[in-house]
Amino acid sequence: VRTERDAATQRAIYEPLADSVRRLIDISIRTEVDASTVAEAKAKIDSAAAELSTEMTPGSFGVRQTDDGQSMAWGNVVIGVRNSVAPPLVIHHESDGSVWTDFDLGAAYEGPAGHVHGGVCALVLDHVLGATAHKPGKPAVTGTLTIRYLRGTPLRRLRAEAHIDRIEGAKTFAVGHISDADGLITVESEGVFIHPRNRALSQ
Amino acid sequence: VRTERDAATQRAIYEPLADSVRRLIDISIRTEVDASTVAEAKAKIDSAAAELSTEMTPGSFGVRQTDDGQSMAWGNVVIGVRNSVAPPLVIHHESDGSVWTDFDLGAAYEGPAGHVHGGVCALVLDHVLGATAHKPGKPAVTGTLTIRYLRGTPLRRLRAEAHIDRIEGAKTFAVGHISDADGLITVESEGVFIHPRNRALSQ
Repeated sequence: VRTERDAATQRAIYEPLADSVRRLIDISIRTEVDASTVAEAKAKIDSAAAELSTEMTPGSFGVRQTDDGQSMAWGNVVIGVRNSVAPPLVIHHESDGSVWTDFDLGAAYEGPAGHVHGGVCALVLDHVLGATAHKPGKPAVTGTLTIRYLRGTPLRRLRAEAHIDRIEGAKTFAVGHISDADGLITVESEGVFIHPRNRALSQ
Repeated sequence: VRTERDAATQRAIYEPLADSVRRLIDISIRTEVDASTVAEAKAKIDSAAAELSTEMTPGSFGVRQTDDGQSMAWGNVVIGVRNSVAPPLVIHHESDGSVWTDFDLGAAYEGPAGHVHGGVCALVLDHVLGATAHKPGKPAVTGTLTIRYLRGTPLRRLRAEAHIDRIEGAKTFAVGHISDADGLITVESEGVFIHPRNRALSQ
């Protein structure tokens, strides 16, 4: 992948695959079909996996760059379009430095019955707060993160938003929260994000 | 599912399916096969999904109980054996109240290249610290969680452990950390976990 156009071609091939796997994850948690139907479906999944694994990147996807500087975090567990574990979040950056994202979490993200796992709220907030500090070519890693759980976060439609409280040298102090479909804040968070010298460790 | 024996039968049907989907998640991130091979594999995945979706629990798996009181958090995003997003973690409880788990995180949990996403570390720590407060029939939810990132957490073999610092009424104060294959602590955490009156919101 060298240009933005190549990236679009690649994305058109692999993104629909991730979408199908994402749907399969949800169904495989909730299915109640009998043992023989499960066995048949499993055989198809294993066959698909065998076909796909004939040519693979070793280890992990990594964070790739096109020659024209576009970052492709396609394997990222929160925003990666090739990672079916990722919802994936689409993060919007406003001109005032704030960020927000609307997303939908289903059965795959459950903790308490019918509710998002508290740790998934932490995962989302880590990424969304960190996105306030992220600049193209100037990524950031989490220094500290504090999360306060105000009430249960129901599965399905949610919003996360964050803004910069202040910047001190290499440190960005961000605050943010998750709110449910009724606009109630369920979890709030603050974090310190650092621009490291070692880019290999950046988000 | 009514008895522990029924639960074992069910688990024998659905756990191998989750294992196959988990493997597919990893492969679908890393595959480099061409467009037509992807399309063939995707057709098999969609076909398997269609078979499995003919009979499904609506919404999410929930936290089910057998008649003999065994809790089945099989849909849980951290420990659920039917949830292919979960590694899944197996948490060991020691007699002194401490807990630990050895686990392996691959490409699906990536943030910085070659490293675990900081938010996934938070997800694991939320669950593992919370497990110190969890008792059968007396579950706990997270009140607050604070996480300090000391260094990057490399993908693959990791350990998380936690213990109770103190208990004050319904609040359990827990501390813990994640360490890498060399035993270096990468992330440390403290949290307050609460036994709620509303069990529907428990982990």
